Amino acid sequence: MEELRKRVRVAVIGGSKATRAALDQAFEVGRRLAEAGAILVCGGLGGVMEAAARGASCAGGLTVGILPGSRPGDANPHIDLPIATGLGYTRNSLVVMNADAAIAIDGEFGTLSEIAYGRIYGKKVIGLGTWNVEGVTPAGDPAEAVRLALG
Amino acid sequence: MEELRKRVRVAVIGGSKATRAALDQAFEVGRRLAEAGAILVCGGLGGVMEAAARGASCAGGLTVGILPGSRPGDANPHIDLPIATGLGYTRNSLVVMNADAAIAIDGEFGTLSEIAYGRIYGKKVIGLGTWNVEGVTPAGDPAEAVRLALG
Amino acid sequence: MEELRKRVRVAVIGGSKATRAALDQAFEVGRRLAEAGAILVCGGLGGVMEAAARGASCAGGLTVGILPGSRPGDANPHIDLPIATGLGYTRNSLVVMNADAAIAIDGEFGTLSEIAYGRIYGKKVIGLGTWNVEGVTPAGDPAEAVRLALG
Amino acid sequence: MEELRKRVRVAVIGGSKATRAALDQAFEVGRRLAEAGAILVCGGLGGVMEAAARGASCAGGLTVGILPGSRPGDANPHIDLPIATGLGYTRNSLVVMNADAAIAIDGEFGTLSEIAYGRIYGKKVIGLGTWNVEGVTPAGDPAEAVRLALG
Repeated sequence: MEELRKRVRVAVIGGSKATRAALDQAFEVGRRLAEAGAILVCGGLGGVMEAAARGASCAGGLTVGILPGSRPGDANPHIDLPIATGLGYTRNSLVVMNADAAIAIDGEFGTLSEIAYGRIYGKKVIGLGTWNVEGVTPAGDPAEAVRLALG
Repeated sequence: MEELRKRVRVAVIGGSKATRAALDQAFEVGRRLAEAGAILVCGGLGGVMEAAARGASCAGGLTVGILPGSRPGDANPHIDLPIATGLGYTRNSLVVMNADAAIAIDGEFGTLSEIAYGRIYGKKVIGLGTWNVEGVTPAGDPAEAVRLALG
Repeated sequence: MEELRKRVRVAVIGGSKATRAALDQAFEVGRRLAEAGAILVCGGLGGVMEAAARGASCAGGLTVGILPGSRPGDANPHIDLPIATGLGYTRNSLVVMNADAAIAIDGEFGTLSEIAYGRIYGKKVIGLGTWNVEGVTPAGDPAEAVRLALG
Repeated sequence: MEELRKRVRVAVIGGSKATRAALDQAFEVGRRLAEAGAILVCGGLGGVMEAAARGASCAGGLTVGILPGSRPGDANPHIDLPIATGLGYTRNSLVVMNADAAIAIDGEFGTLSEIAYGRIYGKKVIGLGTWNVEGVTPAGDPAEAVRLALG
């Protein structure tokens, strides 16, 4: 498995509640990231996180979920490697810390905190229908988001 | 000192580098918070954090600094009670967690993460020349910012 | 309040459940620390933490509680300055990080983790009827424990 | 990769400096864990952590390193999946939180904190020439340690 270490890691960030359209985008982003050989990192719970992990999983990719709780078993079923933190919302910082780039989809204040941490850590942050703030590069669709994240 | 527990706590958030105007606003906010009997909570370092703590200190207020590093002694000289965390930027979450309301002054992505956490935790967030995002109530000057934070 | 910064800070660590004898020792340790002008730092909850805070409070001392949860209001009633962390048991590291020395009373594995962190951070750790491990200086009674911690 | 989720995870804990004998034991423990299909979790740095990861890697196992720093690239070269935390020593709690059992080898106070957290979280802790405290089940050699951890 040593080649795992060389793979690009991309965080998909977004809320545990999301519209159908956002979930579809998250699935598509996850699928395309896996097809490109990237490891998907996310917060490990439901909504956008689960849809992206399901997309990556369907395409045979590896998924890592960095959880707020202290039990690895609480991750959604599409997470291959759950990492429990017990840090609550404070774990948001760790999600983007463990990625080379981030794609934000929809989302509320949790997602905004992850966008901010992405930029604090100097990571590229791509946006799909999310917070329109400085530091986020908007993408028109999942294909473009993945291209920008990996570019 | 038992009455400390009953005092309102207000976080002043902002960058460690700031313009002269932002520092003056931070000093004024700190001074007014102390005069109103509030405890000032901040990140404990320089720039806006130090100016606000200096303002509060000059007015006889109590100042708490929640530091990224692991040494309490690294706080700026106007912090009465430094709390070391060793969490790095991840400590931003704890700054607003320990306040009833937050006033954001100027600032970059660190401040944006604190604004986001303030809203995640359901705290009122007042803005003075800072990120113009949903969830931040803008104030025209330090007096209004303090009035809104304490109101 | 600027002289607060110069005061010695001592952590009292121990379990949230304890024998009557351990609670009496904790109260006495807290009282003596306050009389000596030290700030009491603890985990902010019940048992040994509460007894020590009550002792310090009765003697007019300042008490700081570094809490596992995210609500400052969850501290025991004898904590003057609750600091919420939302880190769960992981906050144990922060309790001793914020003290110049620690006194361990009774306790189980949580206390053992705090003893270990005390030594990791190079702090003196005094023991009263607690884990008998390398790095803990045993004391015969509260008076001796406080003397050793402040010495 | 979905079967990853079902594999047992075992933490190997121990210091970044260790004797030749301890490093040999760590390598052997890592190798045997990998042969048994377990995922190795460790702190991701040198000494016992690196030797165990090297052993697991040589036997084709998967290794996860939960790092104190904020850069995944700081992991030792035998870590397949580095998880950066930026939490410093406070990350010790997360190492054992992410394992079903832990094997402690040699070690100083950092290891003691991980033993304590292992027990706080209700995990089995096996010891090889490490702290002789309540809650640690001693093993005579690497084979027995792995058997006890997986048993």
